Amino acid sequence: MSGRGLRTGLMDALREAVRTGRLAPGTRLPSSRSLAVDLGVARNTVADAYTGLVAEGWLTARQGSGTHVAQRAAGRPAAARRAVPAAAPRHGARRTPAYSLMPGAPDLASFPRAEWLKAARRALTAAPHEAFGYGDPRGRVELRTAVAEYLARARGVRATPDRVVICSGFAHGLGLMAKVLRERRVREVAVESYGLDVHRNLLTDAGLRTPALGFDGLGSRTGELGEPGELRGVGAVLLTAAHQFPIGVALHPDRRAAAVDWARGTGGLILEDDYDGEFRYDRQPVGALQGLDPERVVYLGTASKSLAPGLRLGWMVLPQELVEEVTEAKGPVDWVSSAPDQLTLAEFIGSGAYDRHVRSMRLRYRRRRDQLVAALAERAPDVRVTGIAAGLHAVLELPAGTEPSVVQAAAWQGLALYGVDSFRHPSVERDRDALVIGYGTPPDSAWAGALDALCRALP
Amino acid sequence: MSGRGLRTGLMDALREAVRTGRLAPGTRLPSSRSLAVDLGVARNTVADAYTGLVAEGWLTARQGSGTHVAQRAAGRPAAARRAVPAAAPRHGARRTPAYSLMPGAPDLASFPRAEWLKAARRALTAAPHEAFGYGDPRGRVELRTAVAEYLARARGVRATPDRVVICSGFAHGLGLMAKVLRERRVREVAVESYGLDVHRNLLTDAGLRTPALGFDGLGSRTGELGEPGELRGVGAVLLTAAHQFPIGVALHPDRRAAAVDWARGTGGLILEDDYDGEFRYDRQPVGALQGLDPERVVYLGTASKSLAPGLRLGWMVLPQELVEEVTEAKGPVDWVSSAPDQLTLAEFIGSGAYDRHVRSMRLRYRRRRDQLVAALAERAPDVRVTGIAAGLHAVLELPAGTEPSVVQAAAWQGLALYGVDSFRHPSVERDRDALVIGYGTPPDSAWAGALDALCRALP
Repeated sequence: MSGRGLRTGLMDALREAVRTGRLAPGTRLPSSRSLAVDLGVARNTVADAYTGLVAEGWLTARQGSGTHVAQRAAGRPAAARRAVPAAAPRHGARRTPAYSLMPGAPDLASFPRAEWLKAARRALTAAPHEAFGYGDPRGRVELRTAVAEYLARARGVRATPDRVVICSGFAHGLGLMAKVLRERRVREVAVESYGLDVHRNLLTDAGLRTPALGFDGLGSRTGELGEPGELRGVGAVLLTAAHQFPIGVALHPDRRAAAVDWARGTGGLILEDDYDGEFRYDRQPVGALQGLDPERVVYLGTASKSLAPGLRLGWMVLPQELVEEVTEAKGPVDWVSSAPDQLTLAEFIGSGAYDRHVRSMRLRYRRRRDQLVAALAERAPDVRVTGIAAGLHAVLELPAGTEPSVVQAAAWQGLALYGVDSFRHPSVERDRDALVIGYGTPPDSAWAGALDALCRALP
Repeated sequence: MSGRGLRTGLMDALREAVRTGRLAPGTRLPSSRSLAVDLGVARNTVADAYTGLVAEGWLTARQGSGTHVAQRAAGRPAAARRAVPAAAPRHGARRTPAYSLMPGAPDLASFPRAEWLKAARRALTAAPHEAFGYGDPRGRVELRTAVAEYLARARGVRATPDRVVICSGFAHGLGLMAKVLRERRVREVAVESYGLDVHRNLLTDAGLRTPALGFDGLGSRTGELGEPGELRGVGAVLLTAAHQFPIGVALHPDRRAAAVDWARGTGGLILEDDYDGEFRYDRQPVGALQGLDPERVVYLGTASKSLAPGLRLGWMVLPQELVEEVTEAKGPVDWVSSAPDQLTLAEFIGSGAYDRHVRSMRLRYRRRRDQLVAALAERAPDVRVTGIAAGLHAVLELPAGTEPSVVQAAAWQGLALYGVDSFRHPSVERDRDALVIGYGTPPDSAWAGALDALCRALP
């Protein structure tokens, strides 16, 4: 797209933000220089967009005091809630904060555009004509083959291409499983004490109850499955075994074994959300739980953390008995996933570019985590970083009772972040005060500022 | 992908076809030359794959009698039903026929790969970083803007970007509408006497009843809506107004007016499936019904016929009152559509490449339709081509009672096609004998052969 097209797009986005009330009258906009850096566009593009919107009356500019949303620009706050997606797909912010340390997104500025385009050129040039038609609901065989090979090598998953079903991300995969479980007359899926409400909601929207497993230092208490009590009748359990989200522990081997024993004994299913299994900084990643019993574990992974959520590509590795049902649930053809993107990702993995990208991002995230730990040791020694050295987020334990005030203090510093309480299962008592810091989220240009704002907000 | 990668992919696909029983023991495979042409790959790639599979024992090759599936290669027929998608997403064929004139797909060999890759390069190079993150559930503003402008110009749709919601194709859009209608307590959506069962099934799966409108030479009898009788209580009606699928008539202006009057009078909604509105050969296309009343018509269109189904990109233009509900139904972020593809299509439309492609395909399809009409006039003078000169399919009226035998005769000629009976609403009596010929489906290399096979099958 030309600079002109970008400017128009930016103007539309800003007009809409004002119209919907997301940018309230009087709000000061970031300088054109800093917004340009954050968006990865030329400074002139932003400056031109600002000038245009001042001319149209949406914004005002005063010498020396920057650019503001005009007072008379009418808001429509009702729609603001979802006007713009947050880094984590949960809450919208009413005003765009200067910095975000919300978990759930990789560093989007590091998306390997040139390598991706190279893979797209090779894949689309070589693709057979039928690739552009209605596709197999399981997804392209090229991608299923590449994913099966990659997961076996990188995550210890026991996979063959005919057990892999491509989906548009974890939410799509979980939605398919919810549909299949309901058709099997399952009524309850156990979930972890802490997790994403959007995932719980996908299950409850499908008519499934979601009781919570207990939780301690060894991870989720999988031994509770099948015991007398609330967890007796569950047909499946959703686990983030390699790196609990958000608390950050790896599920203890005994707990892994207990989950598999339960599944084997009762015919239950384990849904393994391996959302960031590629990223471990202190040792080789723990292999996927799926390796223990491929017939009782549904493995779910995506390119959302390793590459970018905007690709909307994920994969399920299924027990044999589920392949038919999940394929059926997807529809008679693949109505969801783009064939060019599937072929491009297959080529990207097959050419080794995926491994190279993951290695380079691992170094980058590791450096950020080290910088976070060092900054806290110096400037907030009472705050402890817990959980394994892995993934794109860290958990910062806070003194008891201080979480809400720290989240509020961060907001005053222009820093968006989540306390752990945002992830608590509604049936679980508040049992800790902590922040969930997505250190992968900010672009490099904003990282130092975000870290500084965080330290200033901490007690 | 390299020739080596293609060969591996082809071998995997063939192994799987044998394993699942889709290719039965003894089946003769097409020659490597003709399969290479059909797949758009080098002949050596196919020959190498055949050689490899002979070495592995999956296939046998005998001098002079071609390549066959080995007798001992075990089949698993249960999975065969949906091992390979058909051109139209309805029935799977047990054995791949030599030719297909099934409707529902454009000429996949004409997908403009080079132009698409150019647009992808421009779009991805210029995209802001946030484009790779979780996106607005309505879709990228760049694409919504391009689509609104295009539809206004090409289809007379009254659209602004904030009324457009991107979806992964018609099925996704219809599924979202079904969900919204159910939440509004609508119980019935009227459909046309002839249409796709997959679309009816999407509605019934959501808990909606689908009574049929009457049908005659002027199109669907929209005057029946709201009259006493079965159609009294419907809350919405699904119409292919510009070019009824599959019968091929354009909805008469009086019938258009009656539908809009009904919608205005009752608060009902019209779901307009504008699946091939770009393609009319005898005159300017009739504008979309949506132009008559943007507040009562939900317009649905896709890139599946104009470009390729494999892109999984479509769009809805919504009445103001539905924007919130449909966005909500899509989820808190865009969990479906690939951002790179959305940006690429926006660039493809904005640069004029989309218009150029549609113009060039219009000439190509028109030529095919003319060739079909000429071949029938010469070789099957009793068969009449009906419906307007538009779209990617033609309807061939047959002498009463002959449809099943002609479809069977075509199968014996190695030609896959549908009789109109496959599209009949279950509540409608058989009232005609006809074939629905998708002349857009075959690649150029197979068109003459398909046409010849068709003529030989006709009475």
